[in-house]
Amino acid sequence: MSQALRALMPALANKTYFNYGGQGPLPDPSLEAIQACWREIQVLGPFTGEVWPLVERTTSGLRQRLARWFGVPSTRVAFSENVTSGCVLPLWGLPWQAGDELLIGDGEHPGVVAACRELARREGLRLAVLPVRHLTQEASACGAAVLERLEAALTPRSRLVVLSHLLWTTGQVMPIAAVAQRLARHPRHPWLLVDGAQSLGSLPLAEAGPANAAAAADIYACTGHKWCCGPEGLGAMVLSERVLAEASPTLIGWRSLRQESSADSPFHRDGRRFEVATSCTPLAAGLDRSLQLLEAEGDALARLARMRQQSGALWRELQALPGCRPLLSAPPPAGLVSFTLTGPHGEGAEPAEVARRLGARRIWLRNLNDPDCLRACTHLTTTEAERAALLEGLAAVMAA
Amino acid sequence: MSQALRALMPALANKTYFNYGGQGPLPDPSLEAIQACWREIQVLGPFTGEVWPLVERTTSGLRQRLARWFGVPSTRVAFSENVTSGCVLPLWGLPWQAGDELLIGDGEHPGVVAACRELARREGLRLAVLPVRHLTQEASACGAAVLERLEAALTPRSRLVVLSHLLWTTGQVMPIAAVAQRLARHPRHPWLLVDGAQSLGSLPLAEAGPANAAAAADIYACTGHKWCCGPEGLGAMVLSERVLAEASPTLIGWRSLRQESSADSPFHRDGRRFEVATSCTPLAAGLDRSLQLLEAEGDALARLARMRQQSGALWRELQALPGCRPLLSAPPPAGLVSFTLTGPHGEGAEPAEVARRLGARRIWLRNLNDPDCLRACTHLTTTEAERAALLEGLAAVMAA
Repeated sequence: MSQALRALMPALANKTYFNYGGQGPLPDPSLEAIQACWREIQVLGPFTGEVWPLVERTTSGLRQRLARWFGVPSTRVAFSENVTSGCVLPLWGLPWQAGDELLIGDGEHPGVVAACRELARREGLRLAVLPVRHLTQEASACGAAVLERLEAALTPRSRLVVLSHLLWTTGQVMPIAAVAQRLARHPRHPWLLVDGAQSLGSLPLAEAGPANAAAAADIYACTGHKWCCGPEGLGAMVLSERVLAEASPTLIGWRSLRQESSADSPFHRDGRRFEVATSCTPLAAGLDRSLQLLEAEGDALARLARMRQQSGALWRELQALPGCRPLLSAPPPAGLVSFTLTGPHGEGAEPAEVARRLGARRIWLRNLNDPDCLRACTHLTTTEAERAALLEGLAAVMAA
Repeated sequence: MSQALRALMPALANKTYFNYGGQGPLPDPSLEAIQACWREIQVLGPFTGEVWPLVERTTSGLRQRLARWFGVPSTRVAFSENVTSGCVLPLWGLPWQAGDELLIGDGEHPGVVAACRELARREGLRLAVLPVRHLTQEASACGAAVLERLEAALTPRSRLVVLSHLLWTTGQVMPIAAVAQRLARHPRHPWLLVDGAQSLGSLPLAEAGPANAAAAADIYACTGHKWCCGPEGLGAMVLSERVLAEASPTLIGWRSLRQESSADSPFHRDGRRFEVATSCTPLAAGLDRSLQLLEAEGDALARLARMRQQSGALWRELQALPGCRPLLSAPPPAGLVSFTLTGPHGEGAEPAEVARRLGARRIWLRNLNDPDCLRACTHLTTTEAERAALLEGLAAVMAA
């Protein structure tokens, strides 16, 4: 684990923290970068000819860094306020036809699912479910199983597939690039929407060629405030060239327009067509700093290896702990370790109550409802001592 | 003017500032409140059982304060990232019928107009223009003229009227409450969308009874980063009870859902149905602090009176300055003072070039394209010395 990075995070100083998948700790240098950006905006602006170069430098610097993380041209990157907006916004402008089918993974986040249902209601689309949540085998076997199920679930009317890169519930990885390749062979070439909430900052995304999930998806939506340890309120999405060409913007503002002062202006041709209006520039400075801090810890593969060292160890330790059973049957592909409680679920032994009792000891993980389980996340900053505290805490509160 | 408030704004220390209508200066205590909120989130969270009360207290505290500023119940207030999102988002979920007519003021912001055009294209709606931009008389005569033009422009198919409370170009005030009353007598009772970008923080909004513009509109969208001097990236909207009942949310996320962990959940019945997912809580702490600082300067009427003292003085001074002519024929109803240049528009005498040359002297106002003019904004913090610097600067650069 990274003692240096950890020391920069005040959130980690007074608790045992396993909720990176909910929100990552903000390092002090990132908060300082936010603050410094705000002060500079005030000195130069806030609305002057002297401040625009700073605003432009800050946002396009982050856009370019994210493009490198995604392995795509920066023209394909758009900013959003959060991952849900990134998932949902581009959907509303796609050229739907009544009867088109949306195939949605059964491990998707309720927000995205609810949005797809409303889209389906308004556009007369059909909803179908891609069952992937209960796949617990190791990554390559899981990938093969997902492709099999996809094969069975696709119909001639399939028009969109919605799948997370890393399931927020089980922590299982989905074979996004292979799914994209399969969809490209479908006569209607369904769009592929990927919820990357748990993958940006945990999985390496910038692989070259067709293995690149972010490049292969049509919409790959992410947030900066989970595994990237950036500030809340800033996310990004990668759009495919065909979505940029086919999808009309829906939430339109001056940032969507090529000439921002004219309502007659065409929309931007690049990712900015899905951006709206004023957002908070200092957040971009903060996220950029957080990404730099992660880069300083090693390349994406090295970071994942360290994250998995911790998650693998925790997975093994939980297996050995009476009353706990990890959901996955192999060590997790990234940093999410979900587990059920196998003891008699009497009062106080439900995951929600166990999470609450651990919280009272300042040991923070979260419970999920469906599946009914606990989820602990490990990041570069997770320590052996934290794992030990969690195991000890679990044993104690389950015995209570 | 308020020397005390001014001293809290580093942006005003090194320049002559008239761009409040673009972005207001952020007071140091607001930046400190943002910073303090972030630090507290890290100490308690970021994602723990201990942090949620802070997040809830911060956002609902601001929601309640804004509700008081608007003079509406807090259940009618929703947060948005910016004013454009607040204008546009609720529109997409209204029950349109092909052939419905959108009547849009000719002084509206290009972002909102472009969004309405896209909405019209997709839903098969008709667009009509309400000509109000060239009304230059004092407020009550202007109000009467707007109502006359509205009368002439309404048709049996009218379904939505779009009008700013304070026009961002001329600074003229629109008789929103009277427009709402007229629309209520129309057989189809068209919805009224009000762009409040220039009015929250400048005009008093919380009048009791039917005179209350924010309460009378169906969608009254605002931002915190202009006249409220809050941070960029946070706005709010007031929704009417009928919009809350009739409009489906479009950009849906966990914050739209009554049970955030279930896609089967109904949407919130109150303003939160138009909120989406994670946004930046510290911004709410900052805006709340800025609103408190404004409250400390006097009530909304008193603040407007002081703002108008400055804008009225500037309006008279500009009238007396050879080569300048204010757009309005009476002192401005709030803090926006737009004026054209009447001299021969040779090279260097266009508004854009004059704004650039003033900027080189650190005197900041902005030029507008349509009408081709300059716009200077005065706030509580505007000083006589700043006005003098602007007039001197104008005389100098126009002579150059």
